Amino acid sequence: MSEKPIGVAVLGLGNVGTEVVRIIENSADDLAARIGAPLELRGVGVRKVAKGRGVSVDLLTDDIEALVSRDDVDIVIELMGPVEPARKAIMAALEKGKSVVTANKALMAQSTGELAQAAEKARVDLYFEAAVAGAIPVIRPLTQSLAGDVVLRVAGIVNGTTNYILSAMSETGADYADALAEAGVLGYAEADPTADVEGYDAAAKAAILASIAFHTRVTADDVYREGMTKVSAADFESAKALGCTIKLLAICERLTTGKGKQRVSARVYPALVPLDHPLASVNGAFNAVFVEAEAAGELMFYGRGAGGAPTASAVMGDVVMAARNRVQGGRGPRESKYAKLPIASIGAIETRYYVSMNVADKPGVLSSVAAEFGKREVSIAEVRQEGMEDESGQRSGARIVVVTHRATDEALSETVAALADHEAVQSINSVLRMEGTSK
Amino acid sequence: MSEKPIGVAVLGLGNVGTEVVRIIENSADDLAARIGAPLELRGVGVRKVAKGRGVSVDLLTDDIEALVSRDDVDIVIELMGPVEPARKAIMAALEKGKSVVTANKALMAQSTGELAQAAEKARVDLYFEAAVAGAIPVIRPLTQSLAGDVVLRVAGIVNGTTNYILSAMSETGADYADALAEAGVLGYAEADPTADVEGYDAAAKAAILASIAFHTRVTADDVYREGMTKVSAADFESAKALGCTIKLLAICERLTTGKGKQRVSARVYPALVPLDHPLASVNGAFNAVFVEAEAAGELMFYGRGAGGAPTASAVMGDVVMAARNRVQGGRGPRESKYAKLPIASIGAIETRYYVSMNVADKPGVLSSVAAEFGKREVSIAEVRQEGMEDESGQRSGARIVVVTHRATDEALSETVAALADHEAVQSINSVLRMEGTSK
Repeated sequence: MSEKPIGVAVLGLGNVGTEVVRIIENSADDLAARIGAPLELRGVGVRKVAKGRGVSVDLLTDDIEALVSRDDVDIVIELMGPVEPARKAIMAALEKGKSVVTANKALMAQSTGELAQAAEKARVDLYFEAAVAGAIPVIRPLTQSLAGDVVLRVAGIVNGTTNYILSAMSETGADYADALAEAGVLGYAEADPTADVEGYDAAAKAAILASIAFHTRVTADDVYREGMTKVSAADFESAKALGCTIKLLAICERLTTGKGKQRVSARVYPALVPLDHPLASVNGAFNAVFVEAEAAGELMFYGRGAGGAPTASAVMGDVVMAARNRVQGGRGPRESKYAKLPIASIGAIETRYYVSMNVADKPGVLSSVAAEFGKREVSIAEVRQEGMEDESGQRSGARIVVVTHRATDEALSETVAALADHEAVQSINSVLRMEGTSK
Repeated sequence: MSEKPIGVAVLGLGNVGTEVVRIIENSADDLAARIGAPLELRGVGVRKVAKGRGVSVDLLTDDIEALVSRDDVDIVIELMGPVEPARKAIMAALEKGKSVVTANKALMAQSTGELAQAAEKARVDLYFEAAVAGAIPVIRPLTQSLAGDVVLRVAGIVNGTTNYILSAMSETGADYADALAEAGVLGYAEADPTADVEGYDAAAKAAILASIAFHTRVTADDVYREGMTKVSAADFESAKALGCTIKLLAICERLTTGKGKQRVSARVYPALVPLDHPLASVNGAFNAVFVEAEAAGELMFYGRGAGGAPTASAVMGDVVMAARNRVQGGRGPRESKYAKLPIASIGAIETRYYVSMNVADKPGVLSSVAAEFGKREVSIAEVRQEGMEDESGQRSGARIVVVTHRATDEALSETVAALADHEAVQSINSVLRMEGTSK
């Protein structure tokens, strides 16, 4: 074993930072054996130095720049979030020749180009396994294990909060508001859940997944995004009748046009998923990433997508790899962005649609509704019609649920717009896409 | 991009070899971009050089040693199997300073120490992702992503043939012999299925998984092994009544004794698995590896465990990594065997048992059967008793199914031996373990 220890600096002492420090201290012998040199904690960067944080106060500092510049620091572990001041700290570390491990998804979805360039220039490692799907190894399998294959599609449940809420709605028949409130009480949803329920968190992860899966540059701004706040108990009922459940999916797809040109789609929205699809049984706070590759076929990676200990596991895997590279004088594989694929607009994407609407209960309505689909060459796969009663028990109209075959999003959204103006349609209750079927 | 190409030699031109050659030829531009240098096929080693094998005959050679020794070969891809002549070819390649990628599970389960040492001495890479669970990234997640965590347990469905047979038995109620015959017709079982159905193939994979998960040396001979040929349609019926299915599992476990000493268990046997366990829904020819780690919690990796294209995907991921390392002058992480943990004997392992037996139908039998468990401090979790009729419709005895709580295998097997000698027990129908529950 090498005599010279590998020095690490941890930035941020939240749930993940605390767990990372615990592992570095408690598993010192194991880590040293795996790395080939001891790992030594040089300092922990915090906003305010104070006692009683589970770490010797001598190790704490609020001077992040000085900490990441220390000569005896080899690896900087960034767990501060959000984009700033994390970006500035990481850039400073890379410029000083430190390898960097980060769990910062927002930053990696936005500034990965700039950071990767700085890492390349300094010839150091920049690892971010923990930025997507917490403990689940996803980045490494996509960048390394599938490096000799062609990834066609990635569909992930990558946000634990929304999956907890949707699983609860599916199990108990609860409405969105009640399920959200319960998730808040149990600590699965934050006081302001916008980033989760509106899909911003999932979109950042979709950008990272698309970038590494397709060897191209995709940022969070490139990701089409719809939240899941409008999914209703009635949607779950209809979904069940169709043999489906509803999940918030992050989807990354490689599209090949007629002329062989390739584009990339990255999108986040709630979608119906058939119950026999492996993603359908990923419930509660669990995450999973389903990958389809040309040679490998279907793969799925499943596990805990958040939490201090699971995220720390992913961070420490990266730290051991970066440290090994230091000891052995090499570097890990970097990202490759050679493909430079353009982003496809959502209108060009082919999906299936589920449309639920209330209509007047009179002859000919179903036929005239169906005609709106036909006019735009959207083929209907399944129609369900139910009578509805008003409060006095009188028949007041009918609910129609239509599931289409695959068609472009443009044709589908034009159809829905026409239906909204249709004289026999009282209201469009919901429009969701259906994923995970081939038809 | 570097000008100098990376030369590869492929040994073996079966399903996997043919697919590997196809990818190298068809994806040349993508591979070159990912590696940073073009990949060039120098030759393919075969037993007999002949035309019409889908590869230019000029590339074929039956002189394996000359091929792996060529100066313009950087990476040798071994897809010949079985242990010999593969071992000799790989040793020759490593000694000549070539990096080696292999899918040879039998060899890796037996000679990994010798081969790893040779790779270490030559300072080259030795990769074998395809040796366990085909296309599913398992080796890399365990060795790299979980390098900073403590793996507690690995339970895998790692043999597609037996999983196909057991899934068919579960779905159709078929007996083992019928399901095996059908698997043979469909190409899922070989003419001599012994290696699969007796668990030898799974045991080799268990040895590899245990070695890398626990950083210690485990060979196939260290793995306790029971085949699945005795699992009956009646067992599936009982399993269903207990909310379970039956899977052939490869289990690797880290055991900590009272004094904090650690041992390792690696074992293969058919076991009852609760239907709500993620492994229970892994059906047909799919494989999955379920991992429990201290910080990461539960993880599962799912996908196709065999077949030319899926296995080639795993091989090519290794090839791209080894090639990148050549271009950049580094090496990937090697195996670490520092832990040197002793192997626990099966008798010391704690599991739950399922015992099905036929007994005389008279008063006091259940109590005296239960007493045999109690005497050996084996606690009973559940008992099911059914009357049985003989051919004339007369009541002829009863079938008792007992499920125990966790106890040592020694106590459980002593109990079963005593029951076999018990005067009221007509026959022991089957004894299976139950995994995936905590009780």
